[in-house]
Amino acid sequence: MTIRVGILGATGYTAFELARILLRHNDVEITALTTRQDDRPHVSSVHPQLTGRLDLPLENLSQDQLAERCDCIFGCLPHAASAAVVPGLLERGLKVVDLSADYRLRDVAVYEQWYGEKHPDPARLPESIYGLPELFRDPIRGADLVANPGCYPTSASLALAPLLKAGMIQPTDIVVDAKSGVSGAGRTPKLGTLFPECNESFAAYGVGTHRHTPEIEQNLAQASGQTCSVIFTPHLVPMDRGILSTCYAKPTAAVTTAEAIDALRQFYVDEPFVQVVDGLPATKHVSGTNYCHLTARVVGERIIVLSVIDNLIKGASGAAVQNFNLMYDFAETTALAN
Amino acid sequence: MTIRVGILGATGYTAFELARILLRHNDVEITALTTRQDDRPHVSSVHPQLTGRLDLPLENLSQDQLAERCDCIFGCLPHAASAAVVPGLLERGLKVVDLSADYRLRDVAVYEQWYGEKHPDPARLPESIYGLPELFRDPIRGADLVANPGCYPTSASLALAPLLKAGMIQPTDIVVDAKSGVSGAGRTPKLGTLFPECNESFAAYGVGTHRHTPEIEQNLAQASGQTCSVIFTPHLVPMDRGILSTCYAKPTAAVTTAEAIDALRQFYVDEPFVQVVDGLPATKHVSGTNYCHLTARVVGERIIVLSVIDNLIKGASGAAVQNFNLMYDFAETTALAN
Amino acid sequence: MTIRVGILGATGYTAFELARILLRHNDVEITALTTRQDDRPHVSSVHPQLTGRLDLPLENLSQDQLAERCDCIFGCLPHAASAAVVPGLLERGLKVVDLSADYRLRDVAVYEQWYGEKHPDPARLPESIYGLPELFRDPIRGADLVANPGCYPTSASLALAPLLKAGMIQPTDIVVDAKSGVSGAGRTPKLGTLFPECNESFAAYGVGTHRHTPEIEQNLAQASGQTCSVIFTPHLVPMDRGILSTCYAKPTAAVTTAEAIDALRQFYVDEPFVQVVDGLPATKHVSGTNYCHLTARVVGERIIVLSVIDNLIKGASGAAVQNFNLMYDFAETTALAN
Amino acid sequence: MTIRVGILGATGYTAFELARILLRHNDVEITALTTRQDDRPHVSSVHPQLTGRLDLPLENLSQDQLAERCDCIFGCLPHAASAAVVPGLLERGLKVVDLSADYRLRDVAVYEQWYGEKHPDPARLPESIYGLPELFRDPIRGADLVANPGCYPTSASLALAPLLKAGMIQPTDIVVDAKSGVSGAGRTPKLGTLFPECNESFAAYGVGTHRHTPEIEQNLAQASGQTCSVIFTPHLVPMDRGILSTCYAKPTAAVTTAEAIDALRQFYVDEPFVQVVDGLPATKHVSGTNYCHLTARVVGERIIVLSVIDNLIKGASGAAVQNFNLMYDFAETTALAN
Repeated sequence: MTIRVGILGATGYTAFELARILLRHNDVEITALTTRQDDRPHVSSVHPQLTGRLDLPLENLSQDQLAERCDCIFGCLPHAASAAVVPGLLERGLKVVDLSADYRLRDVAVYEQWYGEKHPDPARLPESIYGLPELFRDPIRGADLVANPGCYPTSASLALAPLLKAGMIQPTDIVVDAKSGVSGAGRTPKLGTLFPECNESFAAYGVGTHRHTPEIEQNLAQASGQTCSVIFTPHLVPMDRGILSTCYAKPTAAVTTAEAIDALRQFYVDEPFVQVVDGLPATKHVSGTNYCHLTARVVGERIIVLSVIDNLIKGASGAAVQNFNLMYDFAETTALAN
Repeated sequence: MTIRVGILGATGYTAFELARILLRHNDVEITALTTRQDDRPHVSSVHPQLTGRLDLPLENLSQDQLAERCDCIFGCLPHAASAAVVPGLLERGLKVVDLSADYRLRDVAVYEQWYGEKHPDPARLPESIYGLPELFRDPIRGADLVANPGCYPTSASLALAPLLKAGMIQPTDIVVDAKSGVSGAGRTPKLGTLFPECNESFAAYGVGTHRHTPEIEQNLAQASGQTCSVIFTPHLVPMDRGILSTCYAKPTAAVTTAEAIDALRQFYVDEPFVQVVDGLPATKHVSGTNYCHLTARVVGERIIVLSVIDNLIKGASGAAVQNFNLMYDFAETTALAN
Repeated sequence: MTIRVGILGATGYTAFELARILLRHNDVEITALTTRQDDRPHVSSVHPQLTGRLDLPLENLSQDQLAERCDCIFGCLPHAASAAVVPGLLERGLKVVDLSADYRLRDVAVYEQWYGEKHPDPARLPESIYGLPELFRDPIRGADLVANPGCYPTSASLALAPLLKAGMIQPTDIVVDAKSGVSGAGRTPKLGTLFPECNESFAAYGVGTHRHTPEIEQNLAQASGQTCSVIFTPHLVPMDRGILSTCYAKPTAAVTTAEAIDALRQFYVDEPFVQVVDGLPATKHVSGTNYCHLTARVVGERIIVLSVIDNLIKGASGAAVQNFNLMYDFAETTALAN
Repeated sequence: MTIRVGILGATGYTAFELARILLRHNDVEITALTTRQDDRPHVSSVHPQLTGRLDLPLENLSQDQLAERCDCIFGCLPHAASAAVVPGLLERGLKVVDLSADYRLRDVAVYEQWYGEKHPDPARLPESIYGLPELFRDPIRGADLVANPGCYPTSASLALAPLLKAGMIQPTDIVVDAKSGVSGAGRTPKLGTLFPECNESFAAYGVGTHRHTPEIEQNLAQASGQTCSVIFTPHLVPMDRGILSTCYAKPTAAVTTAEAIDALRQFYVDEPFVQVVDGLPATKHVSGTNYCHLTARVVGERIIVLSVIDNLIKGASGAAVQNFNLMYDFAETTALAN
């Protein structure tokens, strides 16, 4: 069975990574790449890496055209733009993996507070399926619409959920000090992500206001059955890709580093993409892969959990293919071993 | 009056920055550069940046030779090596700015616990003078020996001391999540600081064990008159220089972001090298300068103070010249405006 | 005597470097910064590095306003925009250092061929004064308008002119393979200079079509009295600043590496900012300075001359201040020792 | 059929890339990793990227032990060390892909002149098989020992050989100005490849003396049947990986850019890993892949050919697996599509 897939918003970094991964997937054919431009550039002029590997133009396609050509859509559109087209795609019988933020938050009010706009498709939110398989795998199988997680929430949730679920840490006063490569800011030219602005520099951004905050809190609450509050501080690292989250949580009782690591290891023992390590993880250790490396240290009154992922892969396009594999009952690691 | 200065351990990055800054100082002549090697390389072969600007060899000099040639010594030796020679230099009437860690901690037991060795000159510790002028200026004036602060302690202490002193934050459960450029690890070739290991990667190191922890706690305690406890997590950023510290503290009472920024601004109103800013500071904003930029944000139950410095300048060699200027009663900013 | 200076087009990288350098100049006061925007942003919001160091807004100023406030103007405008305002400034009695390309080429036809537009002020071109002091110092002294050289032409001309002038190399079949940091591409957001596009990548651009080609040829011709032809290939290096030019020329007669280096050394023996070195120069050796480091190697049938400069300093703003110093009869190195 | 493979000298970057690629090869099992250390570190402590993906220690193994465990050996040893063990491996019936320089040059005298030592196995040189399939595919099929090409020679030879073979360029006065990421310098800690030395810097090295020069000349001579002379200038780029070669050659007759590109395209029309492109190639376009991108431009009296590869993949480990596939009659692209 070959699944015909389309990628909406195919000019950016996550779309490129999706194409690259899907080209390795024996049961997938990429049949559509969309852009809102009208000049139909060949994909190799937008992503020269794909020269000779994928022979398609980027096109401004209608939903009917997409429905004719594709079985499944990967949405790489900005938030709000995504929820404006997803309902039509689902109505036409397509499956959708949505990489935007539109179907991640179940509470419309929270969405509208943090994203500052009306949600175009609010009715679908309460039952939306959040595609973080290591925490919430079952509903993804066979789903028609999966909300692909944000990069920071993946990194922080994989670090903290096991300890919260095990009752080892308190659900409040959690600090997530996170650091990301610049590709996380997208491919639209902006002063702040110009090379000479980012290179040889390090800074925080969105302190106290980043939209991934409620997504992290929702994941931790759902995984642990408790209301959770998180202080989330993202920073920009002068590198292309990778996220490291340094998570500070308060133990509920005395605990050692070995016990904390052990709790993580037990939780993830059967997961193909999460490796609990003894040493300190570096983003380079997972760069270009769908892996997450995790460890823990007890220091003073805090458990520190450190996690690394590749923001474009486990934090976006690799996770999307992992979800796709579950939705279509392929082996979960297909096209993701690297 | 021209002060003749020597630099001990002149092969590294802080020594180069010292030489570069001192060449701008009209009242200084660099008269000695030392190395433990015996082949007397010209400084321009060790630091090609100084070609045509400084005409001296690096030499293996005795204390008597140094005393003949110099009035003041900047020590860029490793810890323990430094305290092995400082007493002899002081006895010979030289003044010393010591950039090593040897005279920073006043409690010998704390030194020996964190540095894992006997201190070569323990008697001098209790009265040692710590060269962070913004917090402890007076004793530096006219001192014979000044312990130049560590890079991380400078960054964290300037961020937290004013709020502690003002009673705005609690002295415990402080988290300092700090990020440094690679030059902080020194110029000795090591696998961990090889370009292809650091570039395109981000990682924590020394979690819970970094030797700057007690130095930060000592500074905060001295500034605030309270025992302080800090969880300190350093990270390595793929850039040459710069430190950003993201400091999380608990307010003692309800406080706004504006009030926190205001408290910082009042504290530093007369300081030439500390700028309290409204926006989020980036290490690039202070790169190559002796400045520290600071701001604060109140998020949830925490005050977050963010500070940036250039680790090699305000975090090392610039601070050393600032101390030198105080010791010799030059204008404090001499050679440091940039 | 204090010279009141204004900087036109003050939002970019060269304008920042100019401000930074001029703040060190005891005989200069910066009195105007211009932008074509109307919201008068404070310079510290555009260049946070200048917080607390320069207290001026960026303003949309008329030529009359500039003439009231300033004695000398540094123009950091794009080409064509610059020549549209320079005549009015000169008429009002101001001196101008123009960092754009508008007054560099003496032949209007060559300008219009390479820049693809009509020149707004063609009459002034034939007598324009090109500000590369090491090759053409005399006319700069006392000039009212100086065309500040391009970054690549500075690097290539300093490398090749001495050997051409000495008759050691042939004036044709010269290859200049040049490599520049990304700041050379300016501060306007563009896809090609976005961090994730440039970082971890290396590419040529403008092969055979770069506008600095005729400028290099003009300099070499003027210095040597011969028509010169150069193949110029610029490349983009994932770093902020620095240019290295690897120049391949044919010797006119058998020559050794030592003789080639010696010819360079004799030529530049009295120059404060050019250092002929024996080792291979790296851009880092001159980063942040107004220096040029040069060396030569004879390999096979070619003399290879390698030169490095900081593109923003010796290749732009440092050179501009060097020219300013000559125009006003200040010591040529004022504010440029670093 | 599963081929059991061992990797000699498994601590470096090329060995990691080999392991990563071979883990994707369905007909390969990695059965031995060697090091000259005796403490048998687990591969995941040397290459944390392989945590959970490869469960082997690095061992100090004898040739007999290797012969027991393996069918084929990939040698990642330094030159001279490699030729000291290869004969014993071949005698024990193993096949060998040697990534060192030891079996690349067919003329012992040339080897000894450029490498400065006696060759340990000179008799095998004249008939050695050089593994650059795009130029010399046939002898690789079924070979027992293949000399894997150097990274620079791959890049330059693929760029120049087609035009030489077509008689479009002259075989002398060729300039190859090449630029490489730092991983090319290996994983042994050295001052020159320390992060703060390379980052934000660009420099040439080995001008006129780099050992890849005779290898390029040998390839071009063999491909074209003419004696060739090349001036080869390597440079170090502050990035992990990638090589761009800018090759300047003299046309034998008038030629256009379109004709030059066309000649390249015809030559490589059936090659799976060489893409002739119209735009200017960037190393990022082939990063992490076994592809080479090539283009040409005619400028003045020169044809400029620009080629990019990933130095660790097409320039080392990818090419090694491509050779392995040919040696064992697997599809040439097995495990190399990415």
